[in-house]
Amino acid sequence: MDSAQDKDAFERIPTFGRFSGLDRVRYPSDLRNLSVDQLVQVADELRAETIDAVSTTGGHLGASLGVVELTVALHAVFDTPDDRVIWDVGHQAYPHKILTGRRERIRTLRQPGGLSGFTRRSESEYDPFGAAHSSTSISAGLGMAVAHHLRAKDDASYRERNVIAVIGDGSISAGMAYEAMNNASVAGPGAERLIVILNDNEMSIAPPVGAMSNYLSRLMSSRKFMGLRELAGRFVKKLPAPVERTARKADEYARGMITGGTLFEELGMYYVGPVDGHDLPQLISILRNLRDTDNGPILLHVITEKGHGYRPAENAGDKYHAVAKFNVVTGEQSKGPAGPPSYTSVFARELVRLAGQDERVAAITAAMPSGTGLDAFAKNYPERFFDVGIAEQHAVTFAAGMASEGLRPFCAIYSTFLQRAYDQVMHDVVLQNLPVRFAIDRAGLVGADGATHAGSFDIAYLGCLPGMTIMAPSDELELLHMTATAVAFDEGPLALRYPRGNGLGLDLPAAGTVLEIGRGRIVREMGRQSGAEKGGVAILSLGPRLADCLQAADILAAQGLAPTVADARFAKPLDTALLENLARNHAVLITIEEGSEGGFGSLVCHHLARTGLLDQVRFRPMTLPDRFIDHNTQPAQYAEAGLDAPHIVATALAALGVDLKAQNGLNTGNIGGMLAANLPNRLTGTTS
Amino acid sequence: MDSAQDKDAFERIPTFGRFSGLDRVRYPSDLRNLSVDQLVQVADELRAETIDAVSTTGGHLGASLGVVELTVALHAVFDTPDDRVIWDVGHQAYPHKILTGRRERIRTLRQPGGLSGFTRRSESEYDPFGAAHSSTSISAGLGMAVAHHLRAKDDASYRERNVIAVIGDGSISAGMAYEAMNNASVAGPGAERLIVILNDNEMSIAPPVGAMSNYLSRLMSSRKFMGLRELAGRFVKKLPAPVERTARKADEYARGMITGGTLFEELGMYYVGPVDGHDLPQLISILRNLRDTDNGPILLHVITEKGHGYRPAENAGDKYHAVAKFNVVTGEQSKGPAGPPSYTSVFARELVRLAGQDERVAAITAAMPSGTGLDAFAKNYPERFFDVGIAEQHAVTFAAGMASEGLRPFCAIYSTFLQRAYDQVMHDVVLQNLPVRFAIDRAGLVGADGATHAGSFDIAYLGCLPGMTIMAPSDELELLHMTATAVAFDEGPLALRYPRGNGLGLDLPAAGTVLEIGRGRIVREMGRQSGAEKGGVAILSLGPRLADCLQAADILAAQGLAPTVADARFAKPLDTALLENLARNHAVLITIEEGSEGGFGSLVCHHLARTGLLDQVRFRPMTLPDRFIDHNTQPAQYAEAGLDAPHIVATALAALGVDLKAQNGLNTGNIGGMLAANLPNRLTGTTS
Repeated sequence: MDSAQDKDAFERIPTFGRFSGLDRVRYPSDLRNLSVDQLVQVADELRAETIDAVSTTGGHLGASLGVVELTVALHAVFDTPDDRVIWDVGHQAYPHKILTGRRERIRTLRQPGGLSGFTRRSESEYDPFGAAHSSTSISAGLGMAVAHHLRAKDDASYRERNVIAVIGDGSISAGMAYEAMNNASVAGPGAERLIVILNDNEMSIAPPVGAMSNYLSRLMSSRKFMGLRELAGRFVKKLPAPVERTARKADEYARGMITGGTLFEELGMYYVGPVDGHDLPQLISILRNLRDTDNGPILLHVITEKGHGYRPAENAGDKYHAVAKFNVVTGEQSKGPAGPPSYTSVFARELVRLAGQDERVAAITAAMPSGTGLDAFAKNYPERFFDVGIAEQHAVTFAAGMASEGLRPFCAIYSTFLQRAYDQVMHDVVLQNLPVRFAIDRAGLVGADGATHAGSFDIAYLGCLPGMTIMAPSDELELLHMTATAVAFDEGPLALRYPRGNGLGLDLPAAGTVLEIGRGRIVREMGRQSGAEKGGVAILSLGPRLADCLQAADILAAQGLAPTVADARFAKPLDTALLENLARNHAVLITIEEGSEGGFGSLVCHHLARTGLLDQVRFRPMTLPDRFIDHNTQPAQYAEAGLDAPHIVATALAALGVDLKAQNGLNTGNIGGMLAANLPNRLTGTTS
Repeated sequence: MDSAQDKDAFERIPTFGRFSGLDRVRYPSDLRNLSVDQLVQVADELRAETIDAVSTTGGHLGASLGVVELTVALHAVFDTPDDRVIWDVGHQAYPHKILTGRRERIRTLRQPGGLSGFTRRSESEYDPFGAAHSSTSISAGLGMAVAHHLRAKDDASYRERNVIAVIGDGSISAGMAYEAMNNASVAGPGAERLIVILNDNEMSIAPPVGAMSNYLSRLMSSRKFMGLRELAGRFVKKLPAPVERTARKADEYARGMITGGTLFEELGMYYVGPVDGHDLPQLISILRNLRDTDNGPILLHVITEKGHGYRPAENAGDKYHAVAKFNVVTGEQSKGPAGPPSYTSVFARELVRLAGQDERVAAITAAMPSGTGLDAFAKNYPERFFDVGIAEQHAVTFAAGMASEGLRPFCAIYSTFLQRAYDQVMHDVVLQNLPVRFAIDRAGLVGADGATHAGSFDIAYLGCLPGMTIMAPSDELELLHMTATAVAFDEGPLALRYPRGNGLGLDLPAAGTVLEIGRGRIVREMGRQSGAEKGGVAILSLGPRLADCLQAADILAAQGLAPTVADARFAKPLDTALLENLARNHAVLITIEEGSEGGFGSLVCHHLARTGLLDQVRFRPMTLPDRFIDHNTQPAQYAEAGLDAPHIVATALAALGVDLKAQNGLNTGNIGGMLAANLPNRLTGTTS
C-alpha cells in the first residue's frame, strides 16, 4: 500500500478526527515518541474506539477493555514487532489490533472477509503467534525466546529479544500453562527473556474456579500493590553472569523459595506483583524495569478489571464476555428476532429433565457452563454439577472416574476443545469402555469464530476408537431423543455431537424418546423400481446436513431423479442393514457429514469394502474439504465447503452421469471431471 | 475358581514354600491380621518374589522395587478393594499384583495371554482404574471420591470410602496432574477422602527435569523427615464441620498458605511429609492417621529409592526402569542375538548427522530421551536438545514457537503419547502451517506393552488435518531417507511415523537422500497386460507392512496372480498419479497400513471417489481391526489384526473371486463373505 492510499484508508475510519491522540498512532513505533501524559490520552481514546467498533460488530468486549492500558504500555515500552507480544486466547487483542496497523479494518472484525476475532500470524507481523484456544502463550513464547537465542550465532546484528506472553487467570489454570512454567526456568539460555504477564481479572469466561484462582485472590489480598520503590530495589543489583552457588542459594532464601515463596517462584519464575493494570504511568515504569533486567523468566502479576472504563460492561460480569452489536450509550445489546431454540438449550433442557429422574446423572464442564447450557443444570442440581475450569484433560478423566463408580457423567465440551483431551478419551474412557457421555457442542462449522473454533475433526478422531458410539442429530427433535438415549445407554462411551446455532423450529414434546443404538432411519424413499434392476441415488446423511439433503432431493425430484434420503443418526456403530440396503438398491450412494475426511464416510467405505458392496454402487462421500474455512456465516461456510444443496445435487448428477452443463444455476464446483467415468445404462433407473 | 483348584494353582508357584510369610497372603485381607513385624517379613519376601518373577519375564523392575513397602502398607491399612488404590502409570504395580490374587500368574507378566504389565480393570477388582499413560490417577481418583459420595444416598450401608492415588515425581509434572490438584480442593463433598501419595524417587524414566523436580528436591532437603510425633499433633484436632471463617483463616496462616506454604498447600492440598517410604512401621502409622482424618484432600510426600533392596537395580539408575530377563545374582540382563539396528537408532543417527550440518535443527522430547534415541542428540548438541519432562502439550507448542522463529524443531514423541498434544498439533502447528517435525516412534502395534502403548490412531487423527505431511518408511533405509527429507522440508508440519523394533538388516549408506514430497514408488510391477483389458491386483502399502506385502506377492505369483506392489511412502499428500495409475490398470486395489480405519485407506478412498476411479476398481483397504489388540509378540499381533501375508493373500483372492476353499494353509479370517459379490470376467487378467 503506498502512503497516499494508506492515508486515504485511514481517513475513512468513522471516528477519524474524534480522537486526536489515537489518530496520530498508526503503528506502535508512533507511541514511542509520546509523553506519558499523551499515552494516557491515547489509552482513553483507544478504549472509546474499541467500544465504538465492537458496538457495530459484536465480539469479546470485556476482555479487550480490561487490557487497554496494558496494550498501550507494552507497545510503548517494547520494540514490537521485533520484541514478541503473544496474547493468550487472543480475544482481548482488539486494542492491540487498533494500534498495530489494523484500525481502518477494525469494524470488519469477525465479519466475512474481515479481521479475525483472534490474533493470527497471517494477519499481521505484530501477531507473532496466533491463538483462540487458551493457555498456549507461555509454551510458544518460551520456544521463541530459546530459539531466538540459538539463532543469535547466525546473526551479526543480534540483540536479545524480549518475549511477552499475556495470559489470563482462567487460562493459567490449564495444565499446559503449568507445563510451560515448570519448564521455563530450566529451558536454558534465552528463557530469561520471557516475561509472562498474568492478567488477573478474577473473571475468565465463567467465574473462576479451582485452587489457583483462590490462591491468586489470597495473593492479592495479602499483599499491597507493589510500588515503584520496591521494584527499583528489586532490580538494582543483577547477579553476576556465572552465578556462584552460594549467592544463588542466598537469593533463593531471600525470595522465599526455600522456605516457601509464591507458587510461581516455586515453579522457578521471578514473581513481581501484584500491580494495578490500569495505572498506565506505573505500568510503563515497571515494564521498563522488566525489559532491562536479566532475572527472568519473570511473572508479572497485573490486576485488571474486565470491561474497565465502560459502565455497562463493568456492571455486567459474564455477559459482556462476548457481546452482540449494542447501543454504546445504554449498553443494550441488539437481539435478533426470537428464533427457534438453540441446539445447546434443547440438550440442556432434556438433560436437566432426566437428571430429575435419575440421580446418577452428573454434568461436567471445563469453564463453559453458559456456552454448553449447563448453567441450567447447575441451578437445578448444583451437587451434581462440576465446573473444573479450563482443564479438559482433567474433566474427561474425572468423568471416567465417576463412571467407574456407577454415575452417568456428561462431559460437555466443544468439539474443538475436546481435542485437548484426546488421549484421556482414548486411554481413560474408551480403552476401559467406561460409559462417559461426551456432549460435543459446536460440532461442524461455527460461523464468526472461524477455523480455530470449528468442530471439524471429532468424527475422525473419535470414529477410529474401538467401541465408541457416535450420534449426530439431524435437527433439534432428534437431539432431544439422542439426549434421552445418551442418559439411557450405559454400555460404554458415547459421543453426541451437535452444531452451534438454532434448530429448525420443530414442535418439541415434553420428553425425548430413547433410540435404538446403531439404527438409522429412511426419511424419504424413492418409489419402487419397476423391475429387479436397481438404480437412482441414495443420500445417507449424518447430522444437520439432512435439511440440505432434502432440498437437494426436491431439486432432483423435479428432474425425475427423486433420491432416497436416510438419516444415519449414528456414525458408529453403523446401521449396517440400512447401509447395505441402500447400497444394494441404488446405483449411487452419497454420504454427507459436517466433518473432515476420515470420519463417517470413511467408516461407511470400510464397511462397504468388507462386504464387497463397494464394487456394486457408486460411492460418493461428501465431507468438509481438506483446508480450513475462515470465519463467515454458517450457510456461507457450508456453501464454501461444498456441503449445501446445490453441491449435493451436483454430486448426485455427476455420479449418475447426467451432463452438468445442461443444468442451470447449479454450483458444480470441480465435479465435472467425474463425468469422464464410463456410465452403465442401469444408472438412470428412476421413478418419476 | 473353587478353593481346591485355587490351592492347587497357588502351590504351583515356583517359589512356593520359600517365602513363609508371603505364602500366607493371597489377598490383601490376609495382611490385616498380621503384626507389623510380620508385615516387614512379607515386604522383604515380596521384594524377593518380585525380583525372581521379573528375572524370568522382563519388565519394569526398578519402579516396582521402590514401592514394595508402600504396597504392603496400603493394603494393610486400607480396606481394598472397597477403598480404591490407583497406581499412576501402573508399571510399578507388580508387587500389588502379587498381593492381590495374581501371584500364581505373575510369571506370565507381559507374556502372550498373560498378565498385563500395567494395571487393568478387567484383570482384577483391585485395579479400580487401569493405566499405562502417566498422570491420570489424581483426576480418576477425584472422580471416584466425589461419585462415591453422590451415590451414598442410594446406599443404606454407605460409609466414606478412601481413594488413594499413587503418583511419581515425574508424572506429577504433567499438566493433567496439575489440573486435577487445582480442582481437588474445590470439587466438593467426597473430595476430602482423596489421598494423593507423591512417590518421589527423583527418577522418572529419565532423570527428572523441570522446576517441579527442583522444587521437590528443595522441599526434601530443607525439611527433615516428618516423624510420628509431628504427625500426631497435626491430626489430633479436627476442625468442626461448619468451619468458622476465623478458624479457617487461622489454620491457613498456621499452615503457611497465606504467607507461603508448600506449592501443594497453595493448590489446596493438605501437605504431609516428606516421609521415608521404606520405613514400613512408620508408613503404616502415617497411613492410619491419614485414613482417619477429614482434612483432605491430602498429599503425602513419600521418598523412595527406585530399585530399592536389589543392588544391581539400585546401582543401575535408568537402566533398570524396564529390563529384559536377567540373572538374579549378577543382575546381568540377557541379550538377544545382535540384530539389525532399531528404527529408533537409525532415526537418531541420521538426525545427529544432519544437526551437525544445520544449526537450525533442534530436538525436543517429553521425558523420553533414551526411548526416542535423542540421548545421542543430547550428547552431541546439548544446547539444541530440550527434554521438557512429561509435558507433551508444552513440547508441541514450544516446538511451534521455535519453528515460528526459523528453527527446524523435531518433536520426538511416541504415537500414543502424541494423543496428549492433539489440540496443540492442530491449533498451534497445523492451523498456522508451522514446520514442526513430528518424529512418531512406536507407530503401529508394539508387542509386550499392549494396547495402551500401541500407535494405532495417528494416521487417522493427523490425516484429517489440512496441510499435514505424513510419511511412513517401509524399512530402515527408507527411514534414513525420510529423516533427511524431514530436515529438508520446511514448508509446513510434517509427521514421520515408524515402528518399534528392528529394521530388516539392510546396508545403510552414510547419509540419507531427500525424497520428493508426496511421491511413492513401485516396488514390484506385474507383467504387462496382453491387451487393453486391465486386470490383476495392486497392493499399495504404507509403512513396514511392505515386507508382508512382498511375501504375499510371492504366494500370489506362485499361483499365477503376481500383483503390482507399491510403497506409498506418504499418507499425505497422496501420490495421486501413482494411485490413479494403479486404479486404472488393475482390477483390485488393496491398501494396507499399520493403523486404524480413518487413516491412509480412507484418504485413498476419498481421492478415488472424487476422481470416479472408485467405480472402476475393487478397492480393499486393510487396516487394524476396530478393537484393541492385547500384548503379544509383534508378529502375532499383526496376524491377529489380519495384516500379515496370509491375510493379504486372502484379501486379494477374495476380491478376485478365487475360491478360498481351494487354497490350503491360508488363514482366511472372515473374508469368505466377500465371495458373494458377483465377479466380472475381467478380474482375472493376470500375467503368469
